[in-house]
Amino acid sequence: MTRELFVASFDNEWLRQGNDQATFAHLAPGPGERIVMTTDAHVVSPLFFPGGDIGSLAVHGTVNDIAMAGARPSFLSASFILEEGLPMADLLRIVESMAAASRACSAPIVTGDTKVVERGKGDAVFITTTGIGVVPSGIHIDGAQARPGDVVLLSGTIGEHGVAIMSQREGLGFDTEIRSDSAALHTLVADMVAVAPGVRVLRDPTRGGLATTLNEIASQSGVGMHIQERAIPVLPQVDAACELLGLDPLYVANEGKLVAICARADAPQLLAAMRAHPLGAAAVCIGEVVDDAHSFVQIETKFGGRRIVDWLSGEQLPRIC
Amino acid sequence: MTRELFVASFDNEWLRQGNDQATFAHLAPGPGERIVMTTDAHVVSPLFFPGGDIGSLAVHGTVNDIAMAGARPSFLSASFILEEGLPMADLLRIVESMAAASRACSAPIVTGDTKVVERGKGDAVFITTTGIGVVPSGIHIDGAQARPGDVVLLSGTIGEHGVAIMSQREGLGFDTEIRSDSAALHTLVADMVAVAPGVRVLRDPTRGGLATTLNEIASQSGVGMHIQERAIPVLPQVDAACELLGLDPLYVANEGKLVAICARADAPQLLAAMRAHPLGAAAVCIGEVVDDAHSFVQIETKFGGRRIVDWLSGEQLPRIC
Repeated sequence: MTRELFVASFDNEWLRQGNDQATFAHLAPGPGERIVMTTDAHVVSPLFFPGGDIGSLAVHGTVNDIAMAGARPSFLSASFILEEGLPMADLLRIVESMAAASRACSAPIVTGDTKVVERGKGDAVFITTTGIGVVPSGIHIDGAQARPGDVVLLSGTIGEHGVAIMSQREGLGFDTEIRSDSAALHTLVADMVAVAPGVRVLRDPTRGGLATTLNEIASQSGVGMHIQERAIPVLPQVDAACELLGLDPLYVANEGKLVAICARADAPQLLAAMRAHPLGAAAVCIGEVVDDAHSFVQIETKFGGRRIVDWLSGEQLPRIC
Repeated sequence: MTRELFVASFDNEWLRQGNDQATFAHLAPGPGERIVMTTDAHVVSPLFFPGGDIGSLAVHGTVNDIAMAGARPSFLSASFILEEGLPMADLLRIVESMAAASRACSAPIVTGDTKVVERGKGDAVFITTTGIGVVPSGIHIDGAQARPGDVVLLSGTIGEHGVAIMSQREGLGFDTEIRSDSAALHTLVADMVAVAPGVRVLRDPTRGGLATTLNEIASQSGVGMHIQERAIPVLPQVDAACELLGLDPLYVANEGKLVAICARADAPQLLAAMRAHPLGAAAVCIGEVVDDAHSFVQIETKFGGRRIVDWLSGEQLPRIC
């Protein structure tokens, strides 16, 4: 029954074949191209939130991890764990949303699986999406490539996704609705690598937020970073909600933003390409990569002080994606 | 913390890079080769059972779906959903088992993800494994290709996996322990397609067992089947356990068996290749494909009667894989 639902909604030649796997005649990378693979489990709660739902998020999250290699997404797989008692209307709504997101990304869901667990052994629905894509020739993006002197770019405002989820979960109503920024970033990335094929690092600051992503990159590359807090755009309503919820926007998840690190010489054209794309319209330079044996990420606060932006010491917000 | 555990256990160049995706320079299919992709969620309960555990099963299940396209497995991804309170010793044991199975298949786990859900919102651990592989040139296996006159081969005894799980779950102790047949079938398939590249259908009779798999193929191909019950090998202890548990071995899941459908002329060398492989030593011909507009799978019983082996009408055994 669910099989028919998926085949009808995700409709494509591979699913229609009805095999336990999909085969592609035309995923043959050209000279210098490479294949990329990524996977993410999605357990977000609640399932529906302003700006998206678990279905669209499950597509965007995986497409973005492909895009962060500088790649174009080719194919997705989707694996569902359903809890007994999930209303069919909810499943339909999620699957339709997932199908629409997949179509918008030109990344068909070509193979899948469904398992059902007893009531109380799951939570409505979990979705694991895996994607493969193709990295164009000449693009080599890696979290280990940041070098002292490079600049750190951010594609837009931070914190909307996490705050949208937490507000919904806590039942908070704000005057201005805060919507998740959940979006697929592959076309933004395509525009970026077209003008700056030498971009060194791309990463989407999801779980753990911008602070965690910067620390990951600093640690992988063995460098430090100097960041200007003043330069990091945060919507006023997100700032207000964070204060109310006791959150620091630097640690709040985003689902439609990226961090780019590039040579200083590449920054002007990269920023221009980002700003010319709707998903990068608010792109800014937020700091620079420095030599630092401790791989510290330091932030110059709005008041002129300087502090270390550490890895999150406590628990990450649970089930944010 | 779990990230370090996975990197240490699954140890490979891609995971060590620490990016959110893995890129492959050398997954370039040659002329006529095709890439295959498949995914499966694993929610088996109990986590540990005679002959395997959720970790080895999560590798074998996905490697087998790749193999059923006639392909060799290349890379795996693994996505974990952990319930708060899962003992670390259990997770370690599962991850080690998964790592060993992946090494044995030469299919490294190159990228992954972990999510944690609250106690009572999951069940210890769920694992979704996705795999990609390469179909050799000249191999075109598809569930829609069975033709009247073809023969139906089975690689060995049926029912062990499902019975092993159900016995464990019901707390039944038999004189002879029944072990899951969980195994990776890609080397068996490689030997088979080497001698019979024209093999038309391969499928592993997992959920719903042999009866469901034969019905799926009959329906996809628009053909009927005549099967000899007498020819289907079932271990005596599985037969006995099925009687006790009220199960029909035809509908019980297998995790290390395959059904092959080929032209009659190919059958002798295909059977010989299967029997020469440890995982196909008990391979047999169980029947033939016939013309039937209703796509009925009919079985000639041990007593000489004939009955239709229908799709499962009730619930499938839950959480068997």
